[in-house]
Amino acid sequence: MSAVAESIAIPDTRLMADALRMLAIDAVEAAKSGHPGMPLGMAEIAVALWDRHLKHNPRNPAWPDRDRFVLSNGHGSMLLYGLLHLTGYDLPIDELKRFRQLHSKTPGHPEVGVTPGVETTTGPLGQGLANAVGMALAEALLAREFNRPGHVIVDHRTYVFAGDGCLMEGISHEAASLAGTLKLDKLTVLYDDNGISIDGHVAQWFNDDTPARFAAYGWHVVRAVDGHDADAVDSALQEARTAGRPTLICCRTVIGKGSPAKAGTHDVHGAPLGADEIANTRRALGWPHPPFAIPADVRALWDARERGEMAEADWSRRFAAYRKHYPHEAAEFERRTQGVLPAHWRDTVRAMLRDADSAAQSVAIRKASQQTIAVLARALPELLGGSADLTGSNLTNWQAAIDIHADDAGLQGGNYLHYGVREFGMSAVMNGIALHRGHVAFGGTFLTFSDYSRNALRMAALMKTRSIFVFTHDSIGLGEDGPTHQSVEHAASLRLIPGLDVWRPCDTVETARAWASAIEREGPSCLLLSRQNLPFVTRGGEQIDAIERGGYVLRDWPDASLPTRTQTHSRVVLIATGSEVSLALDAVAPLAEAGIAARVVSMPSTSVFDRQPDAWRDAVLPRGVPRVAVEAGVRALWRQYVGLEGGVVGIDTFGESAPAGALFEHFKLTAQAVVDEARRVTQRAA
Amino acid sequence: MSAVAESIAIPDTRLMADALRMLAIDAVEAAKSGHPGMPLGMAEIAVALWDRHLKHNPRNPAWPDRDRFVLSNGHGSMLLYGLLHLTGYDLPIDELKRFRQLHSKTPGHPEVGVTPGVETTTGPLGQGLANAVGMALAEALLAREFNRPGHVIVDHRTYVFAGDGCLMEGISHEAASLAGTLKLDKLTVLYDDNGISIDGHVAQWFNDDTPARFAAYGWHVVRAVDGHDADAVDSALQEARTAGRPTLICCRTVIGKGSPAKAGTHDVHGAPLGADEIANTRRALGWPHPPFAIPADVRALWDARERGEMAEADWSRRFAAYRKHYPHEAAEFERRTQGVLPAHWRDTVRAMLRDADSAAQSVAIRKASQQTIAVLARALPELLGGSADLTGSNLTNWQAAIDIHADDAGLQGGNYLHYGVREFGMSAVMNGIALHRGHVAFGGTFLTFSDYSRNALRMAALMKTRSIFVFTHDSIGLGEDGPTHQSVEHAASLRLIPGLDVWRPCDTVETARAWASAIEREGPSCLLLSRQNLPFVTRGGEQIDAIERGGYVLRDWPDASLPTRTQTHSRVVLIATGSEVSLALDAVAPLAEAGIAARVVSMPSTSVFDRQPDAWRDAVLPRGVPRVAVEAGVRALWRQYVGLEGGVVGIDTFGESAPAGALFEHFKLTAQAVVDEARRVTQRAA
Repeated sequence: MSAVAESIAIPDTRLMADALRMLAIDAVEAAKSGHPGMPLGMAEIAVALWDRHLKHNPRNPAWPDRDRFVLSNGHGSMLLYGLLHLTGYDLPIDELKRFRQLHSKTPGHPEVGVTPGVETTTGPLGQGLANAVGMALAEALLAREFNRPGHVIVDHRTYVFAGDGCLMEGISHEAASLAGTLKLDKLTVLYDDNGISIDGHVAQWFNDDTPARFAAYGWHVVRAVDGHDADAVDSALQEARTAGRPTLICCRTVIGKGSPAKAGTHDVHGAPLGADEIANTRRALGWPHPPFAIPADVRALWDARERGEMAEADWSRRFAAYRKHYPHEAAEFERRTQGVLPAHWRDTVRAMLRDADSAAQSVAIRKASQQTIAVLARALPELLGGSADLTGSNLTNWQAAIDIHADDAGLQGGNYLHYGVREFGMSAVMNGIALHRGHVAFGGTFLTFSDYSRNALRMAALMKTRSIFVFTHDSIGLGEDGPTHQSVEHAASLRLIPGLDVWRPCDTVETARAWASAIEREGPSCLLLSRQNLPFVTRGGEQIDAIERGGYVLRDWPDASLPTRTQTHSRVVLIATGSEVSLALDAVAPLAEAGIAARVVSMPSTSVFDRQPDAWRDAVLPRGVPRVAVEAGVRALWRQYVGLEGGVVGIDTFGESAPAGALFEHFKLTAQAVVDEARRVTQRAA
Repeated sequence: MSAVAESIAIPDTRLMADALRMLAIDAVEAAKSGHPGMPLGMAEIAVALWDRHLKHNPRNPAWPDRDRFVLSNGHGSMLLYGLLHLTGYDLPIDELKRFRQLHSKTPGHPEVGVTPGVETTTGPLGQGLANAVGMALAEALLAREFNRPGHVIVDHRTYVFAGDGCLMEGISHEAASLAGTLKLDKLTVLYDDNGISIDGHVAQWFNDDTPARFAAYGWHVVRAVDGHDADAVDSALQEARTAGRPTLICCRTVIGKGSPAKAGTHDVHGAPLGADEIANTRRALGWPHPPFAIPADVRALWDARERGEMAEADWSRRFAAYRKHYPHEAAEFERRTQGVLPAHWRDTVRAMLRDADSAAQSVAIRKASQQTIAVLARALPELLGGSADLTGSNLTNWQAAIDIHADDAGLQGGNYLHYGVREFGMSAVMNGIALHRGHVAFGGTFLTFSDYSRNALRMAALMKTRSIFVFTHDSIGLGEDGPTHQSVEHAASLRLIPGLDVWRPCDTVETARAWASAIEREGPSCLLLSRQNLPFVTRGGEQIDAIERGGYVLRDWPDASLPTRTQTHSRVVLIATGSEVSLALDAVAPLAEAGIAARVVSMPSTSVFDRQPDAWRDAVLPRGVPRVAVEAGVRALWRQYVGLEGGVVGIDTFGESAPAGALFEHFKLTAQAVVDEARRVTQRAA
């Protein structure tokens, strides 16, 4: 029997699955790099989900009521690219041929914003699952907020593919535990239970009873589904729809299924099959077509464009009816799912800054943040706050906030989430909320524990999600909890992540501006907030406007160009952030007495300052004037502003457990230390 | 009935527990800061464990066969300080009075090295549990390696106190799953199930069936133990001894038990009770003694010194018998548990460097590392390797390595651990192994995923554990896997952690030296290793010796003091690390043609270089000569070496998915870019 004749006898499901398989192995082979094992192993699962359940419109990947699909085991990216290509997204076959090449739309791991239809960037294991929890939560909250009797405009599901790697990662525990507690019933995870990870058979290092584990989280679990039987997977997906809880479908699969020699081995996980084995696989599958050639009948089976257009058209009709009855809600839904700020946003910010300035309060910056949140929450119904079990310390809540929780009736809507002690999970869930659109999520923990969530901050920066990370108890000002809790390297180390804005405000006004900038930004921001009270700083209107430039002159020397007092023979620029701005200000008078005119530059955000035009930066930090930076953290990164000849007052060791006041003395973070350093650098420069 | 008369009727167990309670609340009150809720709630559990089970000698906290105790919920530090004080460790009452004060032995969270009897530094939640898994693993491996029939010299248990916070953290999943897989039967966790975390009643955010979850990991679980009944806890601890698996004892407790007004509320978690409520607590408990006064009879009940001395003396007798039969093993056991390197260590290193130099191989640095490991493993039986499921990529294994695994007979010894996809868990387990003493643990993952484990690296630095983190696939040289996997900020950001040594070697010889330095160090090191081949660099003997200084002159300009060629009118220092050293070397000839004499400084470890005397640093980087740094990562931190006027060739954005060669071109990390930058800075300096 010829290969062609054989292919006629092959059932549609098999043909569809094999099309995915062949695209994956041919693309990996062309790239000489990639992961064929997962696409080969999950092909039937993909058919069951994408052909029989997933609600999507390939012609409009931005349709708000589409189902969300997350490939948490992102190394299997070719499976997703195959699905997007075959169902009709704007991803031509030429892009698949350029898999893993520079500036193709098919990078090694799926990247949101690069490839149409990719909902989130995955690869760092476990985070896709947590993103999906955020998406499912966002859907559930929007549904409760916007749907009306007879008018259901938000009703979609979130699906995840996950492998052993995702489920070994700790973040899978945080995300799944939270999803179970919140009863996110429209979340379905398809677990690729193939018993293989990179090192080999997982039994030697991963022996969990995973179904029992997820049942312990309150999930519905469908056990022992044959992952190569699309009908069985289909049934499990049906079951998930009515489970009333998040569902884990455990699919037994063979990694690399279809490859005669390599199926079931870890050799197939992350390397091309090679020409010979690809030929063998073609023969074994009865797939006679050359690389990247998909027969028209198979294309027709996969094409989801018409169905997708109809599904969206149906929704659009329903949304039009909704708009007729609820014009305000419809407009708000559109505004929020498009990520647009309210019409009067700029007025809100202006008033907020003015009020903060006239109130002139000297409070803890975390408290200033809380006051800001309360103002913002009135203007921004999309604000979705939370904390990793430090609400009373982070002060991330506000009076009108409503706790999100679940009871016997399921998830109850609100705008404040107690994430539990789950910093990494929280951050990745926030990224998922941002990717879904409809909310602006912020979440708090201590600055030091940004370490726990660090890769989620990086992913937020890579994806440019509007996630706002509130990190309080900054540096030794935290006091008695000691070095385990005192951030000394964190401000600097967060500033190194490309695309992450870090704000370290010094008083109420800078705090308000930092929040406004974080909300306006198409990308993530970290707000580093003191535990302790900090003095209010008086500013002129121009100075208030200048805060958003990240660095500005807070107190100038008597005359900007020349010394005015005869005994003034030196000038210095003091650069400070957050809790150390007051030290710089306090150093001005003693320096003047010593004949040194000091300008104080407040630099709440170095990355924002770095983005300013040269003219601004040179005006703030004029060349040739020695500089001293002051910050309660590691010193080395400040050399980029003060140079080798400038001075830095900082802390290069871990902190100590003691009251904050004693620590600032002990670590010589004082106005006197600033004076001494300024004298040293001006003498050297003289 | 008077208070005194009442106290006579109180059973011993209650008196002992109340002594812990009162020390805790009085110390927190004196400090005006701290966490009384946990010590009040876990007092009876502490009595059951410390008085009836824990094998320890307060007079010798370094006794190798002591049981290990880990307070994973480290905020309850006063419970531990009370236990150490009362059982007879060198922790006088005056230290308890100075709780949370500068340079006391009673910091806010327990710190190893500060307080005798504290086994690990805890506070960042979940990590204590993972440290304990490392300790239990170390014990099990040492027992299998050193015990002989009739001579059991390693036989101790590891106990953990953990709260809801620890169990919400993802790392608890990683650590517990691994412990279950490895059947670490001498590990016992006492779970303080009080239903309260900082935000309030956990049911709203943490609704796991925790016993079922741990059963799914293969643990033995004792459910629903009354945590205020020391006898019930005692029975559960007995049960754990014969379970043949790690055991979770779920203790139902009331947080803040004993405080009439605040017990059972989250108000008691992290704030002093206040004078009134302390007085009420004294009355309610019938504890008439003033703060910090412990009656002699209660002291006598707690005093464990005599028992401890007897236990250790018994062990010492048995060890003496062991030494008689197995003198070599006894000496090795002592050497390894004291953390001393073998006698011929320096010869080993010298030979290894010489061999690497004469082999002159141009290989991937991860491969150079593997070759080094193979050499080291012959000299160091204490080496305990592993990877977070990237063995074949990290090349952390070696031919003679034996996989650690468990079968029906329990844990089987070896020296290589497949940690699974558990980067954070791996790192914290490694810290526990190091703290236990007896092994030198190293573990691998991709450099980017150091993010997942970042706080464990920080804890290693704070604790000064000899943990060696092998991070391969450094920067864009990783290639096609793309920006999710390409470290650009990681080398710099790891360098910011105080006390963490970061090595980024450029060839086989530097790799060998980096490994040797990591092993010699009393503290943690990270080895950043390229995926791709790098050219071997020829060196003189002095240069090979100089590598251990972290930065040294690899190629000098023709004459160190003056230009020799008339056309040479400028000099420049090129500083490079790892994969970029060859770019700097390749820039020397074209620069010479352009009339610029270039010195190339290889700087595999900036922190090690920073610790050298001024004379060394000034000789390597002479003042007044412009400098250009070259590294495939973010540029800002290099300003500390090149100043504002120097140049940096680097990458300030995320990477891209493409073959490595294409990426170095795309990101302009080329010898030509080094030449251009050197010309720019020398022209500016001229």
